Amino acid sequence: MKFTVSQIAQMIQGKVSGNGDLLISKLAKIDEDASEESICFLGNSKYENYIYTTSAAAVIVAETFEAKKEVLTTLIIVKDPYLAFTTLLEQYEKLLNHHPTGIESPSFIDTTAQYGENIYIGAFSYIGKNVKIGKNVKIYPHVFIGENVTIGDNTTLYAGVKIYYHSIIGNHCTLHAGVVVGGDGFGFAPQTDGTYKNIPQLGNVIIHDYVNIGANTTIDRATIGATVIQKGVKIDNLVQIGHNVEIGEHTVISAQTGISGSCKIGKYCRIGGQVGFAGHLEIADNTQIGAQSGINSSVEKQGATIQGYPAFDYKGFMKSSVVFRQLPELKKKVERLEKQQVAIEELDAIKKLLEQMKAKFE
Amino acid sequence: MKFTVSQIAQMIQGKVSGNGDLLISKLAKIDEDASEESICFLGNSKYENYIYTTSAAAVIVAETFEAKKEVLTTLIIVKDPYLAFTTLLEQYEKLLNHHPTGIESPSFIDTTAQYGENIYIGAFSYIGKNVKIGKNVKIYPHVFIGENVTIGDNTTLYAGVKIYYHSIIGNHCTLHAGVVVGGDGFGFAPQTDGTYKNIPQLGNVIIHDYVNIGANTTIDRATIGATVIQKGVKIDNLVQIGHNVEIGEHTVISAQTGISGSCKIGKYCRIGGQVGFAGHLEIADNTQIGAQSGINSSVEKQGATIQGYPAFDYKGFMKSSVVFRQLPELKKKVERLEKQQVAIEELDAIKKLLEQMKAKFE
Amino acid sequence: MKFTVSQIAQMIQGKVSGNGDLLISKLAKIDEDASEESICFLGNSKYENYIYTTSAAAVIVAETFEAKKEVLTTLIIVKDPYLAFTTLLEQYEKLLNHHPTGIESPSFIDTTAQYGENIYIGAFSYIGKNVKIGKNVKIYPHVFIGENVTIGDNTTLYAGVKIYYHSIIGNHCTLHAGVVVGGDGFGFAPQTDGTYKNIPQLGNVIIHDYVNIGANTTIDRATIGATVIQKGVKIDNLVQIGHNVEIGEHTVISAQTGISGSCKIGKYCRIGGQVGFAGHLEIADNTQIGAQSGINSSVEKQGATIQGYPAFDYKGFMKSSVVFRQLPELKKKVERLEKQQVAIEELDAIKKLLEQMKAKFE
Repeated sequence: MKFTVSQIAQMIQGKVSGNGDLLISKLAKIDEDASEESICFLGNSKYENYIYTTSAAAVIVAETFEAKKEVLTTLIIVKDPYLAFTTLLEQYEKLLNHHPTGIESPSFIDTTAQYGENIYIGAFSYIGKNVKIGKNVKIYPHVFIGENVTIGDNTTLYAGVKIYYHSIIGNHCTLHAGVVVGGDGFGFAPQTDGTYKNIPQLGNVIIHDYVNIGANTTIDRATIGATVIQKGVKIDNLVQIGHNVEIGEHTVISAQTGISGSCKIGKYCRIGGQVGFAGHLEIADNTQIGAQSGINSSVEKQGATIQGYPAFDYKGFMKSSVVFRQLPELKKKVERLEKQQVAIEELDAIKKLLEQMKAKFE
Repeated sequence: MKFTVSQIAQMIQGKVSGNGDLLISKLAKIDEDASEESICFLGNSKYENYIYTTSAAAVIVAETFEAKKEVLTTLIIVKDPYLAFTTLLEQYEKLLNHHPTGIESPSFIDTTAQYGENIYIGAFSYIGKNVKIGKNVKIYPHVFIGENVTIGDNTTLYAGVKIYYHSIIGNHCTLHAGVVVGGDGFGFAPQTDGTYKNIPQLGNVIIHDYVNIGANTTIDRATIGATVIQKGVKIDNLVQIGHNVEIGEHTVISAQTGISGSCKIGKYCRIGGQVGFAGHLEIADNTQIGAQSGINSSVEKQGATIQGYPAFDYKGFMKSSVVFRQLPELKKKVERLEKQQVAIEELDAIKKLLEQMKAKFE
Repeated sequence: MKFTVSQIAQMIQGKVSGNGDLLISKLAKIDEDASEESICFLGNSKYENYIYTTSAAAVIVAETFEAKKEVLTTLIIVKDPYLAFTTLLEQYEKLLNHHPTGIESPSFIDTTAQYGENIYIGAFSYIGKNVKIGKNVKIYPHVFIGENVTIGDNTTLYAGVKIYYHSIIGNHCTLHAGVVVGGDGFGFAPQTDGTYKNIPQLGNVIIHDYVNIGANTTIDRATIGATVIQKGVKIDNLVQIGHNVEIGEHTVISAQTGISGSCKIGKYCRIGGQVGFAGHLEIADNTQIGAQSGINSSVEKQGATIQGYPAFDYKGFMKSSVVFRQLPELKKKVERLEKQQVAIEELDAIKKLLEQMKAKFE
């Protein structure tokens, strides 16, 4: 589907500078080899050079943009180019409309299961006893939904998502392929002979509205009570969330991070990739945690930025890391200094001699 | 299903103090907002305050518990509250009896496959040629079992488990959703032109009895011979176990840990989350390894506790980590000390002068 | 199937020393308890002792091998024992021929999908609209292939692989069980109220020829444009590759490594396990990165070997790590040195006194 530059300018409330009749069929990045029917945006002055050489038909720029050389491409001038481009992405996604609808065969839907209107249930999906599914829900092929699970409206479960019994998923959630919700918490009672006995994990998982969960991420159900993911939380791929954890509203967790059992993570936190949390910690709201950090104690003060293994304040970590690289040199310096220690003894000898001389002299 | 406090006390061999006729329908945590028909336990004195405010009908406490304030709830007095509660969890799990039975349709069971009595085979499960499955086995939907696989009695494979050909799984094992057993070991022969040639991985995976494996964990098959998980091993979610690895009996491995090819991990080890092992290492029995450690050499002495990147003794790591935070300050101190180095030369000058004076003086 | 030692010697162009009529039915490792019909190889002098005690029928050795004791087993003498053994593994794999063929039922193949000759499509596989699949492709059970996906010749998708719409997979690729290709990139626009808005991810994933991808690894599709895995790349299990990443030809990535969005990794790089990359980095060709490293800046110089958190040159990291263990001791030394600082003041006092004496003396 093609649009003119002018039509696009209208969508994003922008002003055209150049040929508004050019046809656009593709969104592109300014630093890639854009084809002629592309539109891209300049959001970061770092990429400004590309605007003079791009073969894209049009570029979305900020009102504040001042060209340093001749610009050959048509411009659409807006307040916030990044926001405008995101709007275009959203429009384009609607046009793509890649979501299928209807119920494909074969699928397994227990007779006791209920679901709302405008649903998609892909082939080979399994919907167990007493499952309740809202409207506008998309269930891709190979999804497993165990008994007594509840799923809200407008939620999408991509291929191969597995949801254990009794889990509750909210509205407007997206679970990517291979996500596992509600597996056993990792709980074993050590026996006197060194072996372990499984502790039954009888709780569940509750996921609130507007939560996104990345591919192959795993969220364990609680021993008793619930593992809770609050509203608006965004979780990347391959993340592990242990039993009885609670993640506060609008917290973002990057890929491959692991959160041990019974942690309580605050709201609006931003957690980097490959971070690890020991069990039973409380992390205050608005905490920012650098990638690969090891968190072994609670964070009480809101708004802290921490990093390291174990983590402490971010700036301190960066400074200590600089000195870490110089450690062999620092050690040598200390050893050189130690060799001077003998001088102290000499100093004592001198003092003694001087006392003697002074006594004689006076 | 509801029980009276007295009935529960009988199950766990406890003594009732208070109203034994109260009805219990739910297990709860003492620090959560328990409903009236709940029972919880006090296992850790840290949580004692909650016993005076909980709205649970009953709390299981130790014989040694002495109330500091008035307790309004009914008590069940036992020797070990945690153990008693675990017993209740087990009883409760049996009552829940969430495991389905029978063979659902459609499923794919090769005509050469064999299986024992009292089996569950969920819809869309695939059972390949010459597969042998024991009795009381639960195979959830979307499980893939490749040819010549053997599975023991009383084992549970949750939704979407994939087991490659020739793998052997023992009795009483639990494999959680998305586990992959028997994928190719990561072996490539570097060629002279910088490319790599796949080395065929012809071995298999052998998993012994009473092993638990967490969701989306991957265990590679051996190049030749077998990757072996010994009896009673407990593995958490998203763990990677390379080809030809052997994990000793009753070792526990936390989430997101990775074990490179040909490692031999001892018995009764406890390995934290996100730990990484280089290839071909031997780790002695009873080794404890802190989270996120990087293990780049074998551990010969049994019973060591190690941590760090690279790992060394745990206490040393914690002490060094404290100094790591102080490194910028330590560096400044050394620089200040170095400025004093000039004093040594002055000392030499003084000594010379003193010798001269002494010579003249005497 | 059994072969004589002489037949095997012919396959690998070797010379028999001993009984060439012995029967071989199994490949084994020299350091394991080999059965009588086994053949193994001695590739590393570290394992030489085993050649005098092995119960294997034959051992493949190098021309340069000189026995230090009596060798009881038959030998096959070749130029490169490792290479010869790899050849045997390949022959053996062909004999095993474990790959099934044909189209199993039930499977879901959209009427608009196309596929080449000699294909295997396992039961419960899902092939969406306009999918194009080459010849000799093996699609194991529970594979999901979304609409408009293209898959080249001779590629194998193991059980439960999930490929989102518009992805392109090359020839001779192997994707192991549970791999997810094309999930949403992790992109969210922060709103002024602290919440996040999903940024549509409209690009795709392009995987070139001869790429291997390990079990449960996830590769996100680009926001716009493509996430690209170049020819011959080998990726281990549980790896995360973010949106708009490009991995250069013949680069090897070990398990559980995570690569953040828009990174550009060079050719012929070797990346250890559990490494993490910050976003938007460029890594030069032939870079080697040690396990668990944290890469927070681009690597411009080709052929560097780096490690650490954050990473720097490998040798420097190893040296600094040694001093890290000695930090508490180093700190004590500095404190001891500081106590000597008082001596400097004494030195000043001595100098003063000496000046006075000198003045009087002269």
